[in-house]
Formats: sequence, structure tokens, C-alpha cells
Amino acid sequence: MDDLGASTPFLNKYAQKVSLCRRILRSIWHFLSKEPAKSIHALKMAIAFTLAFLLALIELPYSVFGDHIIWAIMTVIVVFEFTIGATFSKGVNRGIGTLLAGLLAVVIGELASLGKGIVHPIMVGACAFITGAMVTYGKLWPTMKPYEYGFRIFLITFSYIMVAEYRQSDPIRMAVNRFFIILLGAVIGISVNVFVLPLWAGDELHEIISKNFNSLADSLEVCVNEYLRGAVLERVPTKILMGLAADDPVYEGYRSTLISAAKEESLATFASWEPPHGRFWKFRYPWQNYVKVGAILRHCTYSIVALHACLRSAIQAPVQVRSLFRDEIFAVSQACALAFRKLGGQVSLMQKSDGMAIMSGVHRAVEQLQESLYLRSYLLVRPETGILEQKLTEELPLSVIPEIKKSEVDMEVAGRFNPTALGIAVKPESPLELNRRQYKRLYSWPHREVDDYKFTKDSVLQQKVRVLESASAMSLGTFATLLVEVAMRLDYLVDAVDELGELAGFREVVKEQSNG
Amino acid sequence: MDDLGASTPFLNKYAQKVSLCRRILRSIWHFLSKEPAKSIHALKMAIAFTLAFLLALIELPYSVFGDHIIWAIMTVIVVFEFTIGATFSKGVNRGIGTLLAGLLAVVIGELASLGKGIVHPIMVGACAFITGAMVTYGKLWPTMKPYEYGFRIFLITFSYIMVAEYRQSDPIRMAVNRFFIILLGAVIGISVNVFVLPLWAGDELHEIISKNFNSLADSLEVCVNEYLRGAVLERVPTKILMGLAADDPVYEGYRSTLISAAKEESLATFASWEPPHGRFWKFRYPWQNYVKVGAILRHCTYSIVALHACLRSAIQAPVQVRSLFRDEIFAVSQACALAFRKLGGQVSLMQKSDGMAIMSGVHRAVEQLQESLYLRSYLLVRPETGILEQKLTEELPLSVIPEIKKSEVDMEVAGRFNPTALGIAVKPESPLELNRRQYKRLYSWPHREVDDYKFTKDSVLQQKVRVLESASAMSLGTFATLLVEVAMRLDYLVDAVDELGELAGFREVVKEQSNG
Repeated sequence: MDDLGASTPFLNKYAQKVSLCRRILRSIWHFLSKEPAKSIHALKMAIAFTLAFLLALIELPYSVFGDHIIWAIMTVIVVFEFTIGATFSKGVNRGIGTLLAGLLAVVIGELASLGKGIVHPIMVGACAFITGAMVTYGKLWPTMKPYEYGFRIFLITFSYIMVAEYRQSDPIRMAVNRFFIILLGAVIGISVNVFVLPLWAGDELHEIISKNFNSLADSLEVCVNEYLRGAVLERVPTKILMGLAADDPVYEGYRSTLISAAKEESLATFASWEPPHGRFWKFRYPWQNYVKVGAILRHCTYSIVALHACLRSAIQAPVQVRSLFRDEIFAVSQACALAFRKLGGQVSLMQKSDGMAIMSGVHRAVEQLQESLYLRSYLLVRPETGILEQKLTEELPLSVIPEIKKSEVDMEVAGRFNPTALGIAVKPESPLELNRRQYKRLYSWPHREVDDYKFTKDSVLQQKVRVLESASAMSLGTFATLLVEVAMRLDYLVDAVDELGELAGFREVVKEQSNG
Repeated sequence: MDDLGASTPFLNKYAQKVSLCRRILRSIWHFLSKEPAKSIHALKMAIAFTLAFLLALIELPYSVFGDHIIWAIMTVIVVFEFTIGATFSKGVNRGIGTLLAGLLAVVIGELASLGKGIVHPIMVGACAFITGAMVTYGKLWPTMKPYEYGFRIFLITFSYIMVAEYRQSDPIRMAVNRFFIILLGAVIGISVNVFVLPLWAGDELHEIISKNFNSLADSLEVCVNEYLRGAVLERVPTKILMGLAADDPVYEGYRSTLISAAKEESLATFASWEPPHGRFWKFRYPWQNYVKVGAILRHCTYSIVALHACLRSAIQAPVQVRSLFRDEIFAVSQACALAFRKLGGQVSLMQKSDGMAIMSGVHRAVEQLQESLYLRSYLLVRPETGILEQKLTEELPLSVIPEIKKSEVDMEVAGRFNPTALGIAVKPESPLELNRRQYKRLYSWPHREVDDYKFTKDSVLQQKVRVLESASAMSLGTFATLLVEVAMRLDYLVDAVDELGELAGFREVVKEQSNG
């Protein structure tokens, strides 16, 4: 190759240039296709902008509107937003603001022109002051927030016409002209936005909400698995504290739900401006119910955040204790994750389904966990004192609670509830040795040096260790309770998804699917 | 009065009108003074708007700039924002966008005019297309978000100058003219905003963050008090689910912290545009550290949200159980609330203080709670089985743990740890009766009708009740653990406030105050 290149330098150079161009084009393509929505938006904006520009370049419209044609271009620039709903909303705001301001300015201008001499500009100034104050105050009114842009454009048009009127131009013709030019710009912007690769706010909202179900399910699963694996994480990293993207799968799963309230709200507002389209072929589609579902997902997220905090908590249950309820906790997390996914699937595929069927698995798993906690909660309390352990393992399980015991034996591996087996798992070494070792590993809180203790007797230190251990074992109970809380909040979610399905007219699915 | 009114109808009518006017004026005044910041903003906007308007009404500027003077008014309208930082940010964006676009448009326009005939408009159109696409894509770049407005104004000016150039006006003069007019508008807007009753973004951020400390303290106190009072709340109301304002003191306390992330972020961005002023008389004041403190407050809030959820949880500890650790839980909540308030006071008054001193009370209270939980956690486990209770009350307290017992007796009312006294408190009636009664009151989850039970023997039903009770008693442990979690997160807050104090140059306070 090198030899060939030396013999034909021109061809070689040419080939090099071609390959360079190719590489550049490929990297541009790669760059643009990474976030296709942004590229599409930029392309559409360029098309609309160029179309509006043509109005100024071609003779006919220019000869009619003259230099004012720039307002059509400006309207396109200002009105053209990412989603169709936002563009509609801005376009309508701009149109109505212009229309009302034009009317008001013409009337006020005529009235003000009744004043002669110095009175005229004073009256115009006074009208400007009063209008400016009132419009600005109105803009700040909480219910007027979606129309903020309309208020702004109202003031602009108002001053435009008032100045023209004062300067002896023909204000009425100007107002009409201006309205039509702005209408022209708005029509160009909206048409390009709707007919060229449309990006609907409704679609985006639907996608975001559907995706959040699955992310939460992932987050919950990973969190519980990590917990059972005995993970003890370090201090909370600053990125998580600050709500920024961080390299933590649990956090990444729930982050989007946690911070997307404002986004969901604004998407729903824009979506309500959009005409029926695609899958949402229904007049007055219940977009606000998506916001509600999103809010309840956030409510569930708060519980998952609390669960996640258990992984980082300074006081942690040792892995042996965690493994006591491994299967039950795992089952609840699996059932909850499945329920999240099924509900998300319903929203995503726009299908109705039986909420009770979805929750039955969750209910079963939670009951199982509650029973296990009841049967073995004594293991969480001072496992090292010896008294409890002996008395309980001898007397309790078979005599007091035979029925539940029996059903459990039927359902699961027979050996698991055997207290002796459990005892072995909890005590692989002598209790004192274990305490010592664990104390070093445990993050105690408040932070204390061993030297800080004012006691000198070993037995007292040991007791302090026990206090911490008791707290650490109790943290397992907390984890389990919080997990049950996640399951309970699913009820709200089922209701919200049902309501959404009802109002949005989700399809009924064939019966066999709802058994799963 | 009526008689007098009849005799002097004119005076009466006059008096009526005066009183009516007074009432109207008073209600307007009341209305405007309710939210003074909004009234101030509207007034300032009206002043700036009128000043800009005067440019069009007075002969001198109009004779220089002609109809283009409207751009100064438009600039005022567009640039004038609530806070000074936002106004600066928009003004600078507008200025730089105009300047760069003017330069680019002049250069491109000159190049395009080299093409003769039909080539000229085609080249102009192509340039518009490319510029439109690139600017729009750049605007969507995540790091470019604060400059979004600059990109928009860039496109507007670009098209303005390009059209003028194509239409054989003098583009350079136009670009310079336009730049100065916009500068004039920006100067008017910014001057009024700065010199008339200034509203600083930095002030607002400082107030919001300081206030959130106290709200969280209130929220925590009310939540814990309600819990100890035995409050069991109903289903979560829709308003709370949706994150809207609701009539719940705990929720109202933490709501603002929970939802204000975006607001704090944008206020900090705007504040960084503001020159040193008032209390913040320091170049490069660390506004981003306020955001960090706010984020950590939010981190604490998530724990308080989890605590709050305990009040609404379907599975609840009965009030007798809650009262077991009443004093310790109350002490922790008081210590945490005090720490929140002290830290908030530091931020609010811009004082440095010793973090360790603030946290020492919290540490003491938490240790006390942990010890109590250790000593009495057996009470949370199956209090009705009888076996545990008898064995423990007989054998444990005095023999195994004399030291801690002793210190507790020293510190608190001697009778409180007496197991017999406790036994009485827990069992005011026969266990079976109590179980039955509580079961009705308890919200069980999953929801089950009593008929749903497939068992018929009373003893089995009783066991199911016990399972729920065990879970409900464990929920107290959860509450306590979550409360400790709040206390632990205060550590992060102390660090963040220290860092803020260091960077912002908070004053040292005299030593005697830091002992409190």
C-alpha cells in the first residue's frame, strides 16, 4: 500500500481527503443521531426560518408589507418551540395578545389625541404608565402563569401602535397589518412544526411516565438485592446530595422521577394545547391524569429513597441478620417490581387491566413477610444475651404457633425455620468475638473513638457495643417496614392508573393476560 | 342618621361616594400590600416602560433614531425581570447576541452579495438555513441553557440585518444603530431595576434557604408530637400526593423545601449575575453553596417525609407502644429541631459557629434513644405471648445491665424503667380483649375482611391479629430509626453550613453564645 501510495501521490492524497471527509461526516452523523429529537428540532427550525426569510427575499410579499415583513420572521423565531403544544400555546398567546393590544392602543390613542399641545404626550405617557403597571401585575397573577408570554407581547404591540399613532402614522392600518404579518409568521411556524416530523408534548409525557415505572422497578430491585448482599455504602456522595446524575444504579433509577415534577407539569400543559393525534385520538384527552400518575410515582419514590438510605445509614444490620428474612424480603421486592412493570406496561400499551390481579402477588408476599417478622422478630432483639435465644428456641416455635408454622413448612424449604439452623447462621463464632469484630466494621453514630468511653471495664464497653448492635438489628426491621410501605403505596398507583385508563379510554385486554 | 340623610340628600350622597371611594382605595391598598414584591415590580416596570416611551414622545431621540426607537421600548419590556440578576442576565444576553449577530450578518451579507442575479437570494437563503439550524442546535446544548435567550435574540438580529442588507439599506449603520438602541433600552431597564426599590435574587435566595431551616424544624416537631399523641391519619389526600398546598402542618413545613430545587438553582444563577450589594458585599459570593445547603436540606426532608409517612401508614403502633419511648423520641426531635433552628440562624444572621457544639445535644439524645431501644426492645416483640414478658421482667434489667440502668435512674424519673409499671401501661385490659379491640382500630394492609380468613378456629384468627400487631409494634422501631436518620443527616448540613460560612466570610460570634 505504502509503495503504491508513493507511486501515485495524487491519487493517494485524494483518497486521504475522501477518507477524512468521510470520517468527519460520519462523526457529525453520529453526533446528530445521538439525540435525534434535538437534530430534528434544529432542522425544522431551520426550515421554518428559511421559509419566513423567503417572504423578505421574494418580491410579492415584500411589496405588500415592506420592511414590516421582519415581524413575520421574528414571530417564527419566537414562537417555534420544541413541542407542538408549546408552539401552539405561544402562537395563540402572541396572536391574542397582539389583537387585544392593537384594539386597546387604537382606542386609547384616539382618546389621548383629543388632548391638544402638551396634554397629548402627557396623556399618552400616563396611559403607558397605567397599562404597564396593570399588565405587569396581571402577569404575576398565579393563574396567569401560562399566559405570561401573551402579556409581554401585549405590551410590545401596545407600545408599537401607540408610538405609531402619536407619530401621525395610520394606526388602524398598522394594527391590522401587524396582526396579519404576525399571523403569517405563526402559521409558518406552526405548519412546519406540525407537518414536518412532529414532536408532540403528549408523546413525550406518555414516554416519560411509562419509562419511570420501569426505572423505579429497577431501582427497587437493585436496592433490595444490594441490601441482602450485605452492601454497606460510604457517605452520601455530593452528587447525590445535590440531585445531580451520579454513578449509582439505585439512585439513577429513581432520580428522573424525583426531579421531573415541573417537566411533567409543563408537558401536560402543552399537551392540552395539542389537537388529537396518533394514539391519543380523543377530544380532551386527560393529560392532567398523567401528572397525577407521575405525582404518585414520586410518592412511591420517596419510600424508595428511604429504602436506599438504609444502604448508607450509619447504623446497619450485619449481613447475617439481613439473611434471616432474605427470601421474604426478596419476594416482596420482586412482587413490587413486577407490579410496577405491569402498571407501566398498561400505561405504555394503553391497556386496561385488573388492579386486584396485579396486587394479589404483592399482598401475598407482604403477608408472608409480616408473618415471618412476627415469628422471628425475637431474633432481632439482643441475639447475644443468650437468655432469649435459649428460651425461645426451646419453647416457642412449635408450641405456640403450630398453624402458621405448618403452612410455612409446606410452602418453603423445611429446614429454613429450624431455629438450630438459624442459630448456626447467626453464631459462626463466639458471641464476644463476633461483637468485637462487628464493632470495628459497624459505622457507629454519633462517631465515637473507643478512647472516648469514660468507662474502663470491659463489660461496659461490651454493653455499648450491644446497644449499637441492637440498633443495627432494628434497622432490618426498618428496612422491612419501608419495603412494605412501598408495597402499600402501590395501591394509590393502581387507583391512579385505573382512573387514567378509564378517562383516556384504554383498551380492555383479553382475560388470559390479566391472570399473569 | 336616617333622618339627617333625608334632610340633606346632597351631602349624604356626597358622603356615601366619599366613603365608597375610600373603601375601594383601601381594598386596593390592601390587595397591593398583600404581596408587596409584586406591587413593587409592577410599579418599577411601569416606570421603566414610561421612561422608554418618553424616548418616542420627545423630539430629540426620535429625530435621531426614527421609528427604530420602538426597539428600545421592546428591549425594556423583554429585559425587565423580577430580580436584578435575571434582568442583568437577559440584558447581557440580548446585548451580546445582538452584537455577534450583527457582526456575522454583515460579513455573511457582504459575501452573499458577491453572487449576482438569482445566486444572491439563494445564497442568503442557504446562509439563513445553516445559521438557523446551528443556532437552534446550540441553544439545546445542556451547558448553553442560561444563554437560551441570547441565541434567540441572535437569530432575530441576524435576520433583521440580513434582510436590510438584501434590501439595499445600509447594513453597517443599521447594525450599529440597532445595537445602540438596544443598549439604551437595556440601560433604562437595568437602571430602574437597580435604583428603584431593588429586588435582589441573592436576597431572595438567602431568605428562602434561611426560612426552610425553620420550616423543617417545625415540621419535624409537629410530626413527632402527633406521632406520640397517637395520631393515625387517613389515606394520603390527593393534594399531598400531587405536591400541592394542603392543610397539613407537617406537610406544609417541608413542602417548600421539597419542591424548591429548580427555584433555588435559578435564583443562584441570577444572583451570580448581581454585583456585590448589601450584606453580600464580597466579590464572587458563593451562591452555589446556598444551592448545596438547600440540596442537603432536601436530603433531610426526604427523611422527614418518611417519618411523616409513618403517621399515615396502614400499619401503626398503638399509642401505648408509642408511649414506651416517648421521652427519648421527644428529646431527639427537640434536639434536632433546635439544631435546625441554630443552623438556620447562622445562615440567616451570617454568623459562624461551632458545629460540634450544635450537634452535641443531638448526639446525646440519640445515644439515649439507642440505649432505651436496646434495653426495652423486647417490649416491641410479641408483648402478648406472656413468656417473654415474664422471663424478661424477672431476670434482665438489674442483673445484666447494671451500669446503664444506674445512669438512667440518675438521669430520669426512677419509676419509669420499672417493668411492672410498664406492664400495667401496656396491659390495661386482658390481652385477648385488647387484641380484638385494636384489630378493629388498626388499618390492616393488605386490606382484609375478617370473613376472608380461610381459618375458622379462633386461635388462628388471633394469631393473624398478632402478626399484624407485631408488624405494628415494629413500626415504632421504624419511626425511631428514621428519626435517628434525620439526626444523622444533620451532620451533612453542619458541614455544608460551615463551608458556606467559610467561603462567604460569615462573622465569628463571641464564645459565650456557642455554648448554648
